[in-house]
Amino acid sequence: MWEGSLGALRFHVEHRRAGAGGGPTLRVHQIDSSRELLRFDCFDERPHFHVDPSGRGELTALDPLADNVAWTVAELARDLAGYLEKAAFAGAATWSPDELAATLRGAEDAMRNPPVDLDDLSLDVLKSRKSEKWEQYPSEILPAWVAEMDYPLAEPIRRVLQRAVDRDDVGYPIAPHETGIREAFAERMADRVGWHVSPGDIQVITDIVQGIVWSLSAYSEPGQGVIVQTPIYPPFLGAVRDTGRRLVENRLVAGDDGFEIDFDGLGGADARILLFCNPHNPTGRVFSRSELERIAELAGARDWVVVSDEIHSDLVFPGHEFIPFASLGPEVAARTVTLTSATKAFNIPGLRCAIAHFGSRELRQRYLAALPRHAGGGIGLLGLYATIAAWRHSQPWLDRVVAHLDANRATLARELAARFPGVVFHPPQATFLAWLDFTALDLPGSPARFFYEHAKLALSDGRLFGSDCEGYARLNFATSVSILAQLLDRMESALAR
Amino acid sequence: MWEGSLGALRFHVEHRRAGAGGGPTLRVHQIDSSRELLRFDCFDERPHFHVDPSGRGELTALDPLADNVAWTVAELARDLAGYLEKAAFAGAATWSPDELAATLRGAEDAMRNPPVDLDDLSLDVLKSRKSEKWEQYPSEILPAWVAEMDYPLAEPIRRVLQRAVDRDDVGYPIAPHETGIREAFAERMADRVGWHVSPGDIQVITDIVQGIVWSLSAYSEPGQGVIVQTPIYPPFLGAVRDTGRRLVENRLVAGDDGFEIDFDGLGGADARILLFCNPHNPTGRVFSRSELERIAELAGARDWVVVSDEIHSDLVFPGHEFIPFASLGPEVAARTVTLTSATKAFNIPGLRCAIAHFGSRELRQRYLAALPRHAGGGIGLLGLYATIAAWRHSQPWLDRVVAHLDANRATLARELAARFPGVVFHPPQATFLAWLDFTALDLPGSPARFFYEHAKLALSDGRLFGSDCEGYARLNFATSVSILAQLLDRMESALAR
Repeated sequence: MWEGSLGALRFHVEHRRAGAGGGPTLRVHQIDSSRELLRFDCFDERPHFHVDPSGRGELTALDPLADNVAWTVAELARDLAGYLEKAAFAGAATWSPDELAATLRGAEDAMRNPPVDLDDLSLDVLKSRKSEKWEQYPSEILPAWVAEMDYPLAEPIRRVLQRAVDRDDVGYPIAPHETGIREAFAERMADRVGWHVSPGDIQVITDIVQGIVWSLSAYSEPGQGVIVQTPIYPPFLGAVRDTGRRLVENRLVAGDDGFEIDFDGLGGADARILLFCNPHNPTGRVFSRSELERIAELAGARDWVVVSDEIHSDLVFPGHEFIPFASLGPEVAARTVTLTSATKAFNIPGLRCAIAHFGSRELRQRYLAALPRHAGGGIGLLGLYATIAAWRHSQPWLDRVVAHLDANRATLARELAARFPGVVFHPPQATFLAWLDFTALDLPGSPARFFYEHAKLALSDGRLFGSDCEGYARLNFATSVSILAQLLDRMESALAR
Repeated sequence: MWEGSLGALRFHVEHRRAGAGGGPTLRVHQIDSSRELLRFDCFDERPHFHVDPSGRGELTALDPLADNVAWTVAELARDLAGYLEKAAFAGAATWSPDELAATLRGAEDAMRNPPVDLDDLSLDVLKSRKSEKWEQYPSEILPAWVAEMDYPLAEPIRRVLQRAVDRDDVGYPIAPHETGIREAFAERMADRVGWHVSPGDIQVITDIVQGIVWSLSAYSEPGQGVIVQTPIYPPFLGAVRDTGRRLVENRLVAGDDGFEIDFDGLGGADARILLFCNPHNPTGRVFSRSELERIAELAGARDWVVVSDEIHSDLVFPGHEFIPFASLGPEVAARTVTLTSATKAFNIPGLRCAIAHFGSRELRQRYLAALPRHAGGGIGLLGLYATIAAWRHSQPWLDRVVAHLDANRATLARELAARFPGVVFHPPQATFLAWLDFTALDLPGSPARFFYEHAKLALSDGRLFGSDCEGYARLNFATSVSILAQLLDRMESALAR
């Protein structure tokens, strides 16, 4: 339930189940009399709206094939006064256009995002998923490895999928740039982080790893150096290897307060490309403006192209600020390719859709010329539209997810300290990944191997993330409170033996 | 409704709607007494089975998260006698294992494929699709261009999508080769066309065009010749251009009986690769064994690699036989890459999934080495599982579709001859595409342009398919009888003006 007010009006959104249908209802009341003036029932079946429902009760059917939330909001933006007049509203329109727009924005968000209980997860249902997280290991193994969340999908994304089912609609998509996906990204960046990008500088790609491989092909030659700040998401290392480039490891240094950039090492690196990751996977670091500026300075001095994977940027915890690398300034942008996707924060990696933003025309042209056109394969219809639904309509869901992850992060920090004091854990500033140092426990074999065998728990093995990571494992905490508790209990039992 | 018999038993499948749930029911009756012995209600909600439903009526719940059709068939294959004994069946098991297997296969097909009415299409619903076919042009235009069908999805595919919605399951897929997709293809080829392939020779890719581009990169150098038999699916021409290869057009010749290969021209071609298409888009030719053998002979003599797009091979009409090029023999296979996909015949191109089969280890290695690993992007979870559902479970749907297309093809031939005698039409031997020669009508501009403007009909413009195609247009007839009639009426009205 959501409420907002506008002058003498109160707006009220609720979600109703009505047989097989149901959906969101927006009511507009007159505050002083509590009289209901308008009611928009944007149901899946027989959608309709009422003018003056408690009086004349005029009911008008809506198009069941249309996006009636969009229609309702557009109609009220266009002519709220006209609707109110028909409903015999006695008051005056005392609101500004901005106030109206803000109220309608709130109403739309609420209509599109019904309440969701992120702790209401069934292990049986999760185990029936076909995704890698749940399919890779036998069912007695509790998976906390690959970066997929256990939560229900955001409702706007679910609707994209359901709509395709209902309309047998999985044909060829129109050209990606005609779907509005680039504009959706540009608007989101402007609204959320004040980064202004032009849709024309964006290319839609399948996934981040593809973007990395094409970037390495475009901006370096075989044998040239590519800096990777380890520990790192393993495909970074794979991409350097598969393209025959030379890996230049610049290790993040674990200090008392977490992982820090080794700027001396970075400054001395012989390379063409810095393959950057911010927020950083697996440490969860969100690099500060001063850190980014020092990197940018080095990049300028050494003439690196910076390929910046920012896929975790929607999962930043309070107290930290995500700054797109390319937003530092035009000179920085001109050497930066930004790779990002809705698939991580909105948990739709199986739909395969990402974007590459080029900070200069030259970077874009070199990227496009690197490999033959269409070698990258087409982007699927559902990935395109689910991404648009994520970026345009699913922020309320994401806010709840980040709050839930934040609570899980606190639980993890508390429980690890209490139950496994030897484990070193710097709570991540973003992501749902915990990079855990088990070195002091002196476990036999790798920690991931140990917990797989003795706790029936699948973590990501530290050794995949770079050198000197033998004592580490990555734990994915994007799950319910109850499953997280089971994870910790399994760890404790295994260590107690 | 489906029925099959097995000794003294009758098997009977029907599809029931029960509230929001429903689903298939398999009943086993004793023929002489008509007594129902077993009933398996594989419903979405509260699935269960009955032993002796009209007698003891023992009811056992099934797992609502499981594939209960698979479970039922496996149980009956394992221990039909045991179930019958519990149901107090008086007769004897007189059937062979093969008879049991055949009956269960029929029952499974029937359970997975409820009846579908391919003529029950709503233009309003079609117009609300997000696919290119329905999104590209204004809603007053009737689209008959891009090769997407208007029919409802096969139920096994719809279930893959619905299951993902219901379980929030669009995460990373397991590695494509672990999903069983290659085995599904190998089994299908063996069953349907007697071509025996090894799963290890198959690579999962995003789409056919990607496979073409990688093949051109792998097996030729820039500037070398690539033979294309025009008229052709336009991305063939684009792939040759985008990879900087030299286009060698070998035009199919329109004779009295349709399009024939110009073997003289083919034999004189200077090229490294034959980019073959069989069944051929847009002409619908299914090349005969003798034609294929002559091509193979030339390919051997000239040492061509043959890249054979066989995506339309599931859409062959009675009287014609599809023969995979690589099945001609080991020497032919050793120079052939076969590209195919379920996305065409099962109408799921938006899910992006295809396969490349390599007739030799060397071809496979060169293909994989042509471009950096992962440059092709990942394959989506839904594409993988929908493809498996198509190949393993959706043949009854496809049989109905091909029969419907065959009838539409006959309608088209009859109506074109009666109403537009100047239009030359050789009915396709496969595909749902009609390659129409309007030259004799001397229309102003291209036929596609003419009908777009004067008939509000979107056809594919012949000029995109190669040189000397100005008078042609391609019409997609994969729609309902009623919409096909509208298409023809619109053409007639435009020509009558």
